[in-house]
Amino acid sequence: MKFEVTILGSSSATPIFNRNPTAQALNINERLYLIDCGEGTQQQMLRFDVKASRIDHIFISHLHGDHYLGLVGLLSSMHLNGRKKALYLFGPAHLKEIIDLQFKYSETTLQFPLEFTAIDAQKAEVIVNNSDVIVETIPLDHRIPCTGFLFKEKKRLRKLIKEKLEDLNVPVEYYTALKRGNDYTSASGKVYKNDTLTTDSQAPKSYAYCSDTLYNEQYFEQISNVTLLYHESTFLNDMLDRAKETHHTTALQAGEIALKTHARRLLIGHFSARYKTLNELLDEARSVFPETELAIEGKTFAIE
Amino acid sequence: MKFEVTILGSSSATPIFNRNPTAQALNINERLYLIDCGEGTQQQMLRFDVKASRIDHIFISHLHGDHYLGLVGLLSSMHLNGRKKALYLFGPAHLKEIIDLQFKYSETTLQFPLEFTAIDAQKAEVIVNNSDVIVETIPLDHRIPCTGFLFKEKKRLRKLIKEKLEDLNVPVEYYTALKRGNDYTSASGKVYKNDTLTTDSQAPKSYAYCSDTLYNEQYFEQISNVTLLYHESTFLNDMLDRAKETHHTTALQAGEIALKTHARRLLIGHFSARYKTLNELLDEARSVFPETELAIEGKTFAIE
Repeated sequence: MKFEVTILGSSSATPIFNRNPTAQALNINERLYLIDCGEGTQQQMLRFDVKASRIDHIFISHLHGDHYLGLVGLLSSMHLNGRKKALYLFGPAHLKEIIDLQFKYSETTLQFPLEFTAIDAQKAEVIVNNSDVIVETIPLDHRIPCTGFLFKEKKRLRKLIKEKLEDLNVPVEYYTALKRGNDYTSASGKVYKNDTLTTDSQAPKSYAYCSDTLYNEQYFEQISNVTLLYHESTFLNDMLDRAKETHHTTALQAGEIALKTHARRLLIGHFSARYKTLNELLDEARSVFPETELAIEGKTFAIE
Repeated sequence: MKFEVTILGSSSATPIFNRNPTAQALNINERLYLIDCGEGTQQQMLRFDVKASRIDHIFISHLHGDHYLGLVGLLSSMHLNGRKKALYLFGPAHLKEIIDLQFKYSETTLQFPLEFTAIDAQKAEVIVNNSDVIVETIPLDHRIPCTGFLFKEKKRLRKLIKEKLEDLNVPVEYYTALKRGNDYTSASGKVYKNDTLTTDSQAPKSYAYCSDTLYNEQYFEQISNVTLLYHESTFLNDMLDRAKETHHTTALQAGEIALKTHARRLLIGHFSARYKTLNELLDEARSVFPETELAIEGKTFAIE
């Protein structure tokens, strides 16, 4: 099952040096989940061939403009391009008020259902649970209410050992039960333990998206052992005071968080406009957690 | 005096084919006047080196998203980049409500004065009158209240004929009065007519910005004889019914408007997403009005 993330925006606060405000497109089994939607996200989607028609879920972390100002434009374009199927939108309660006001004055009635779910930034909650993925909110610590999002692949079915089933002439109608972990009892009454007929599937993979936040251990347990951790790294650690003041994280801290929470890999982004080049941020995070990459726009990272 | 317009966005409704929603930067005597501000305008400004710090006036024609969704992002960036001087914003009354709501929830208090003037789309009004330019609204005919903007260079002072003034020993303190068109009376009481001592300056130049609108003669008189007419040309004329239905103009109509209003030159833009290439639109407008150009993004057009 495909599980990968494409970076559409990596800049904090303002666009600069060809970097755009935050947005990411997560592909899970060929369905797209858009995470944040800074100004220009729809232009970035065109640039990197990310199809709006394949997005059914959008998640907005918080109401700072660099995380949502592209949303009304994207919704308008979906509407103008003939979208009819529902779109599920998750974000702070006031987001709906902002959208409604803008569509009111543009006299736009969306031609598709926009199903909005308000997020309570105070507690972790499951907000999506479908056949592919469970999505939980991650309460973060920012200047205004802000949540990250944890995407956990659904536990996969066990894999059948086809040769054994054929040797034993197991009827095909038992296969689904075997995949689910049940034992098999033959016509003659003999019981075959599930693990003699199947093998375990790969462990479910997971992606945690943490932006924007102060370094705060409150969410560490929830994101422990993720396959890929995206964590904001707005500043180098020599700007730690500024990071604290603005409720952001440094690259060094992001590395420490990945280490402490046993992430398999780390992706850093949300780079301050003060950094024209990003190598120092990468080096700093890697000094603590070597398996770190930069969230470069247009790059796709497999979650595996 | 510099008087030129740089195109930042040329697309109607949705960004496509590397075309962005509408925005233009008008440079009058090295001060920038931003006209409309579609999503991604601040990115386009970075791309084409249009400095936000040089903008003191922003004009929003109407509240369709493709004409203003980049505004809150631009204002935020001005704020974050330390702007202190006032910004004068002109647009539909509800624009202020939209901006205020978004800054309320992002908990942003702008560090510069945002001086907002609500436009009445029902009548032409002078909204700016400074030493360089007079700006009038142009009531247009769109689906929601919409105005264009007419920029008229201030009538310039007359040019002194230096040799004559020196021959006559006209005291320097009379020069300003002469430039303003007054006659000169010498110490001996002899009157010299102004036009014997000065020459007329160049005729004031003008720029009319008309987007979005149905073909409607109501605004033709107001824009007559402009140096450069920007007119929306969303469709080719084979889509005339669609143009009428959506309250837009065709390229042929734009050419006709330029012809009827005696524009010196015509610039067409606001191209529909149905046109990947623009030559047909240009050819159609030129078939009526040869002095037509396409509003290509990044291009600067001198108004002369």
